[in-house]
Amino acid sequence: THASRLPAQPTWLDAVAWDERGLVPAIAQEAGSKDVLMVAWMNREALLETWARGQAVYWSRSRQRLWHKGEESGHVQTVLDVRLDCDRDVVLLTVRQEGHEGHGVACHTGRHSCFFHQLDGEGWAAVEPVLVDPERIYR
Amino acid sequence: THASRLPAQPTWLDAVAWDERGLVPAIAQEAGSKDVLMVAWMNREALLETWARGQAVYWSRSRQRLWHKGEESGHVQTVLDVRLDCDRDVVLLTVRQEGHEGHGVACHTGRHSCFFHQLDGEGWAAVEPVLVDPERIYR
Repeated sequence: THASRLPAQPTWLDAVAWDERGLVPAIAQEAGSKDVLMVAWMNREALLETWARGQAVYWSRSRQRLWHKGEESGHVQTVLDVRLDCDRDVVLLTVRQEGHEGHGVACHTGRHSCFFHQLDGEGWAAVEPVLVDPERIYR
Repeated sequence: THASRLPAQPTWLDAVAWDERGLVPAIAQEAGSKDVLMVAWMNREALLETWARGQAVYWSRSRQRLWHKGEESGHVQTVLDVRLDCDRDVVLLTVRQEGHEGHGVACHTGRHSCFFHQLDGEGWAAVEPVLVDPERIYR
C-alpha cells in the first residue's frame, strides 16, 4: 500500500499533549550548572528530530519552520535527557550548550541564559553579563 | 476623578509580552537543587500576586481562576527570585518548595518534580519516586 511508504512515526509522540497549534513549550536546562538557559517551542517533527540527532531542534513560530538551534551561531545544544511533565504538555531537555570557547552562550544577546531580566520591584533589570558580542554570533 | 480610585498596576507588568490569551508560561525552579519542579501559566494578576505575596500564584486554565499554589495541599512555593527571558514571554521563578516534612513535593502525583517521564526511545518511563501518597495531599 502507499501508506507503508510513509515514514513511521514512533508512538511515543502520541503521548505528548500537543496544544491546539500542535506545539508544546520546551525548556533547555544546562547539565552540570542546572541553569535554565531558554524556552522554545516544539512540534512533533521538532521533538522527533531532537531525539534522532541528539541535538535540540525547535519549531520557530516567527519563521514557521524547524529551527536547529545553533545552525547559524554554532551554539548547538547536545541533548542528554528528555523529560515530559505530569500533564504531558511541557518538555524538559538536559543539554550541554556548545559554542564560543566554552562560554555556554544560549541567548541571542550573547548571554549565558535567556533569563537575564530580574524583577526588583521597580522594573526588570538586566543582571547577566554579555559574554559574546551578538554581532560575532551571527556573522 | 474616578480613574484615581482604580488600583494602580505597576508598569513592569506592561513589559511582559503576554500572549493572545493574556498569559505567559512560568517555570518554578527549586533554589539549592536547581531542579525544575513544574511549569504553569500566569496572567497579569497572577504575576502581581506572586510578587506581592512572595509566593507563587498561577492562572489555572482549567478552572479559569487564580491558583495560589499549595492553597489545598500546603505545598506553597516561597518565591526568592523572578526572571523574564530575552523575548519577555517566559517567567522563571526561583522557589523554595514547602510542605510534607521537607520532601519538597511540587507535583500533584506526590513526586518532587512534575518532570518524571523520561524518554528512553521506546516510550516515556516514570523515573521519579512517589514521595507522598497523592490522597494524603488533597484530603
